[in-house]
Amino acid sequence: MMVDADLLIHSAAQVVTCASDVPKRGAAMQDVGLITDGAVVVKDGRILAIGPTESIRERYSAVQMMNASGQVVCPGFVDPHTHVVYAGDRIGEFEQRIRGATYMEIMAAGGGIVSTMRATRASSVDDLVEATLPRLEQMLRLGTTTAEIKTGYGLDLDSELKMLEAIAALDQAQPIDLVPTFMPAHAVPPEFNGRSDAYIDWVVNEMIPAAADWYRNSHFFVDGRPLFCDVFCEKNAFDLAQSRRVLEAGIAYGLPAKIHADEFTSLGGVGLAVELGATSVDHLDATMVEDAAMLAESGVVGIVLPAVNFNLGSHEFADARGLIDAGAALALSTDINPGSAPCPSQPLVMAIASRYQRLLPAETLNAVTINAAFGIGLADRVGSLTPGKQADLLLLNCTDYRQLAYQFGGNLLATVVKNGRII
Amino acid sequence: MMVDADLLIHSAAQVVTCASDVPKRGAAMQDVGLITDGAVVVKDGRILAIGPTESIRERYSAVQMMNASGQVVCPGFVDPHTHVVYAGDRIGEFEQRIRGATYMEIMAAGGGIVSTMRATRASSVDDLVEATLPRLEQMLRLGTTTAEIKTGYGLDLDSELKMLEAIAALDQAQPIDLVPTFMPAHAVPPEFNGRSDAYIDWVVNEMIPAAADWYRNSHFFVDGRPLFCDVFCEKNAFDLAQSRRVLEAGIAYGLPAKIHADEFTSLGGVGLAVELGATSVDHLDATMVEDAAMLAESGVVGIVLPAVNFNLGSHEFADARGLIDAGAALALSTDINPGSAPCPSQPLVMAIASRYQRLLPAETLNAVTINAAFGIGLADRVGSLTPGKQADLLLLNCTDYRQLAYQFGGNLLATVVKNGRII
Repeated sequence: MMVDADLLIHSAAQVVTCASDVPKRGAAMQDVGLITDGAVVVKDGRILAIGPTESIRERYSAVQMMNASGQVVCPGFVDPHTHVVYAGDRIGEFEQRIRGATYMEIMAAGGGIVSTMRATRASSVDDLVEATLPRLEQMLRLGTTTAEIKTGYGLDLDSELKMLEAIAALDQAQPIDLVPTFMPAHAVPPEFNGRSDAYIDWVVNEMIPAAADWYRNSHFFVDGRPLFCDVFCEKNAFDLAQSRRVLEAGIAYGLPAKIHADEFTSLGGVGLAVELGATSVDHLDATMVEDAAMLAESGVVGIVLPAVNFNLGSHEFADARGLIDAGAALALSTDINPGSAPCPSQPLVMAIASRYQRLLPAETLNAVTINAAFGIGLADRVGSLTPGKQADLLLLNCTDYRQLAYQFGGNLLATVVKNGRII
Repeated sequence: MMVDADLLIHSAAQVVTCASDVPKRGAAMQDVGLITDGAVVVKDGRILAIGPTESIRERYSAVQMMNASGQVVCPGFVDPHTHVVYAGDRIGEFEQRIRGATYMEIMAAGGGIVSTMRATRASSVDDLVEATLPRLEQMLRLGTTTAEIKTGYGLDLDSELKMLEAIAALDQAQPIDLVPTFMPAHAVPPEFNGRSDAYIDWVVNEMIPAAADWYRNSHFFVDGRPLFCDVFCEKNAFDLAQSRRVLEAGIAYGLPAKIHADEFTSLGGVGLAVELGATSVDHLDATMVEDAAMLAESGVVGIVLPAVNFNLGSHEFADARGLIDAGAALALSTDINPGSAPCPSQPLVMAIASRYQRLLPAETLNAVTINAAFGIGLADRVGSLTPGKQADLLLLNCTDYRQLAYQFGGNLLATVVKNGRII
């Protein structure tokens, strides 16, 4: 007997599932779950079945049939690390850097995170939503259907909660599913200059409890999406002991941990992430071999952000190849933000990673789908074409998924299907 | 008295003209001809006037008014060096390279230019047109309104003429204005292995005369667009003496010269270009200081192709900063091709150049507009917003033209106006 469905998409080219019950690591990262001449069946916004077209068509009939032959069908991308909510831009700073200004000179001229903080503090929730919507639209048009977004440009209680409000409003205003991360420990705000411990006291005693309260009254909580707590563990930001205080406070209030670690300096952030059972550890540019081995033994997802290195015109990139070879579960993210990565494109991140970090196209695809979903704790609902998951999928104008990493600067996306709806 | 026009576009943000009667060099490359609150008037597909909105509106009335406030208006991009007509792809080779295969191993496995040559020879004109149209569509959607295209994947008389036919057909099948370049001396074809001089004899005595014949019967000739002649002057391709023979033969038959020089090795190609009065000299990765100085003194446009270096995961880029500082007129191009640059995006090239070659956003914009137009001999009709030129212009979703180089991986293009028509 035929089973009724809403939508059946089939492609004589490739359907790529990226399916896995656990974060992919090692050789599994080279397996994208390729089905040549495959079909996906959608019902009530979820994936009902997936398999070879012939066997699927024997068992399912759908109201709408989509012939995607000549196209690749793959999961919607997950962008697991973004700072996409912000006000202002940092173009002046960008130009100063080209002219040879140092980071310190830029800071002295009012640049850096603090300049974005000032503009963000001066903005309303509506201002932030209006400024961010076109960026999310660009991300969607490049294939991102789920994204994490961090606070951290407010750096005071009201402004950080305002950023959470903006993320919640954005989640309901456009198609990309958002996951919020609370990150007041992104930088020491000017009010606490030279008193970072006092700021951490404030973060731990006041801000995290307030954010947890906010979260329990938000639709994210109702929907079973987490609120993460993140900290920038780095020289001139927060040291390991401060980072531990922030993440432990978050965990005590029900906020799972993420950590910015080893971007410039290795302070032991990977070990802290592993010890605390963090969901992800992000950046990993300066990670030492022993820490890579520790990460590989853990359930923590490593998130690597090569668009930052590109943006800085750097010749150094995180050793993503070494991390995968050591056995770590690796994800890729844009880190979209106004200072170090004004980049909305996961496909361009894949292209950079394949060239400057020697990742295979298959590894980059798993890194922006299933592993990225594990990296934000949502692998039970997104990140792969698996029965029961949200029907978030992309139709690409190519017949080989490797084109995603091979081409760069263009956009292969033809159609986005979000929760089973063509948008 | 008011002058009647077809279209008046005004922006309270920026109108950027990039106007110049000569290729921009030195400090002039930092001047984009910025008009804050400006307007462009179009009549019969050409620019009739440009200036501050207030003064323009006093003198011109148009059938159609476009309020582009909140947007930047700039000239359509010119991509002055492409190999965008080809059959097949080189994804397998791309993956082999990531796995560590050397260039020689890839060649031995049937990769490289010869693999594209085989696929191109096996294709009809229609096949080539069909394969290329989506690439040109991507280029157009990223702002390119004029592009040069080279032959050089045929490497025999019939196949090279077939490529010219494809370029002519493509010119009439889609909106981007194309300029053809004849380049049978792109590689030594397998039939002439070890007999490159014999191949050059054939190129000079048979192929160039045939191409010149073709050209004089083509619509390009009627339209006053050139057919260029190009050669790959490089170790393992063609030496300086062979390159001279090719370019001199081209010039004798009325085909102005272009040359691929100094991509890996400095063989004296810059000097040859200057001596022969070439329109452009392209690549310039290995150019020596003396040659840069010679180029700066000449009327030859230097075309730099950083997407190639990016694609190879290279940490070496042409010294574009040094070339500009030496006084050379610099242009930027994608070099879009299946092997070394599967990249349709001039904005991404701008982003790479600003980061890895330290060009200012203004320099990158002049390099993809007015200087690129001089680099293909069409600066009398495209490359800037200047009265009398084609009304090829872009409306960008930003209020500062520097966003073009600052952002990367997205697409700021809102609207393309080609020959005065919104497309």
